[in-house]
Amino acid sequence: MAAEDLTSTAMDHKIAEQPALANGKTNGHTNGTTALPGLDASKLTITRADPTARAVPDQATACSGLETICTDHMITATWKHSTGWSAPELKPYGPLSLMPTASVLHYATECFEGLKAYRGHDGSLRLFRPNLNAKRMLMSSLRISLPGFDPTQVEKLILALMAVDGPKWLPRSRPGSYLYLRPAVIGTQPQLGVQTTKEALLFITASFMPLMDSPQGGLKLHTNPEDMIRAWVGGFGYAKVGANYGPSLLATNEARARGFGQILWLYGPEGYCTEAGASNFFVLWRTKEEEGGKLQLVTAPLDDKLILDGVTRRSVVELARERLAGEVEVVERKYTIDEVVEADREGRLVESFAAGTAYFICPVSQIRHRDHDIHIPMGKGESGQYTARIKGWMTDIMYGNEQHPWGVVVDEQQ
Amino acid sequence: MAAEDLTSTAMDHKIAEQPALANGKTNGHTNGTTALPGLDASKLTITRADPTARAVPDQATACSGLETICTDHMITATWKHSTGWSAPELKPYGPLSLMPTASVLHYATECFEGLKAYRGHDGSLRLFRPNLNAKRMLMSSLRISLPGFDPTQVEKLILALMAVDGPKWLPRSRPGSYLYLRPAVIGTQPQLGVQTTKEALLFITASFMPLMDSPQGGLKLHTNPEDMIRAWVGGFGYAKVGANYGPSLLATNEARARGFGQILWLYGPEGYCTEAGASNFFVLWRTKEEEGGKLQLVTAPLDDKLILDGVTRRSVVELARERLAGEVEVVERKYTIDEVVEADREGRLVESFAAGTAYFICPVSQIRHRDHDIHIPMGKGESGQYTARIKGWMTDIMYGNEQHPWGVVVDEQQ
Repeated sequence: MAAEDLTSTAMDHKIAEQPALANGKTNGHTNGTTALPGLDASKLTITRADPTARAVPDQATACSGLETICTDHMITATWKHSTGWSAPELKPYGPLSLMPTASVLHYATECFEGLKAYRGHDGSLRLFRPNLNAKRMLMSSLRISLPGFDPTQVEKLILALMAVDGPKWLPRSRPGSYLYLRPAVIGTQPQLGVQTTKEALLFITASFMPLMDSPQGGLKLHTNPEDMIRAWVGGFGYAKVGANYGPSLLATNEARARGFGQILWLYGPEGYCTEAGASNFFVLWRTKEEEGGKLQLVTAPLDDKLILDGVTRRSVVELARERLAGEVEVVERKYTIDEVVEADREGRLVESFAAGTAYFICPVSQIRHRDHDIHIPMGKGESGQYTARIKGWMTDIMYGNEQHPWGVVVDEQQ
Repeated sequence: MAAEDLTSTAMDHKIAEQPALANGKTNGHTNGTTALPGLDASKLTITRADPTARAVPDQATACSGLETICTDHMITATWKHSTGWSAPELKPYGPLSLMPTASVLHYATECFEGLKAYRGHDGSLRLFRPNLNAKRMLMSSLRISLPGFDPTQVEKLILALMAVDGPKWLPRSRPGSYLYLRPAVIGTQPQLGVQTTKEALLFITASFMPLMDSPQGGLKLHTNPEDMIRAWVGGFGYAKVGANYGPSLLATNEARARGFGQILWLYGPEGYCTEAGASNFFVLWRTKEEEGGKLQLVTAPLDDKLILDGVTRRSVVELARERLAGEVEVVERKYTIDEVVEADREGRLVESFAAGTAYFICPVSQIRHRDHDIHIPMGKGESGQYTARIKGWMTDIMYGNEQHPWGVVVDEQQ
């Protein structure tokens, strides 16, 4: 065991402690030789809110205030190092009680996921590849030294919440609408000192979230200041942990004050393109004549662990490879802002978009880098044609216009 | 305004918004042209806990459990973007209520400070340079896009908490004992989405904290794994924000499993020494013969913003420069682990210690780097003589054996 493998080794140790990933029986934690209770969705207890207490607002009203409007219920499960996972509870949405000394409030021992539930045009309620979110949350939780769990149990809990709150909060009378689901794990042990928390809370909320995929005139990006980077090799840019977000706000706010929507995060002296705000970033260009002059959809790779392994990103890559074969080449590789500038200068830049759960597929119209502006054609309906086609395929799967294994139907309690 | 100065510019904007730093009247926030109420310690309201409800445990008992034992009271103050800072409250210690959507639980919008209150051998209760902690918390708060405040008000609030809880929790019958003070600011706006919080909470607790400055056999450090770094140029390693701590736990735990106390964080391919765990790091060596063969106390510099501007670090540098002048040269510069290895090999390595509020001045006895072990002489009483002298001076100031402007006496309510 080489000394320099300390982190990899630690992750290996953590993963080896997850028997559930193999046998589905116990999971998350062993205390010496005794297997402690793992997270188990079948033990879910249900305490219902008064269904008449709150009316369902329309999307615009729900998103107009300074507070996220959640549905009637949330799911919580507690974990202790000494006793493992408690039985999860589905209960009325409400505040959490945390001691001022709770780990999460001081040491950023927190990770989360974001996914949406879609009321289909066929009347069904669907999640989009929730297994990928659940798996990624396990990875994020282990990276930030929070407990492990069987991710299939998290997926079941998400489905359980939507089974109860879906019929009222995403009514069949509103096809084409969605709710935003936020599973999270936080460190709750009330003890100061930089150390791994011995207590944690997993919770899942469902809420309204404004539509962000069509800013007027397209999304405008500003490359990051030279004195600030989002993530770095040897860091945790690939994990969905709070520590990736708070520190990015300062540069993002300044970019917004200058009329830009998000930061395009570049990495290293080479200026590799990584992420657009908290979304993945795609460029569609035509390669140079000597390289065949073919259409190429390019996005940053996952292997150096700088960027998030986005579910939307992965779906775009897979769909484009399958459905644009022969027409567009899909490439995951390092590419620099200078290559984008060059493609623009040579008239080879075709389209660009950000991809993520919040921004969905959001066309990019402009990139400011240092003193240079790149303007990207938007086409009709404020989107390039390939961006629109990919977005259309995804939308069809999400809202049931296309029956597809990625669309997981919720068995609603009517 | 150069495009690449986005972060510096943002910090400049934030600091320019702090009129209090100039005139002491308002602070923290202006909303357009209207100055909103700043944090104001003179508005403190006091709600007392039943003084007989809880007995004061001894230090060993207090630190034996999984929960930090706090004193009877805490101080809180809330901030809203629309209304500024509320009047601070001193009230019974207890849980905080946060919505599951609160910013701090998802995006690590949090920063904190740590300092101690010392019951002197002369009977007085002292803080050690609390103005430096308060100033640093302002910097950290702005870096993580939390609100600004007049740091002298935070200092006054810390003194107010100790004025009330000091007599009972640090009784005159226990000279030489201390409590740990933890001011913090967290983002509380209950809205999902990566954005600057419009609501925040400042709180201050006082608690027991175990003594960590004398691990048996000295502190053993393990250099960080090559696949993990703590901070990076362009990051936020200089700010006391949660995002610096949670991500470091994985490597620290693995190091502990191998018998080491903390990680010695190296930076870059050169392997510059930066911090020891969450403490600053010092090496005392003799320079090479051709460089004069003189005693030199070396520690990493602040200018590349990789490391925390520690109050203990700064005090060590200042005291050593003043009191060891002519005997030891004090140097803040980049130095590599290879230089430390070389000094060890050539018999020039004299002493080493970690410096911080939690670890105070903690002698380092061993550093493992890759496959190489450096053993550092500990001397009598498990400390090198210079380490012991510096520690002694600091201790004398903290506990009133030496009257010094760094020791700020609390005006206790008897």
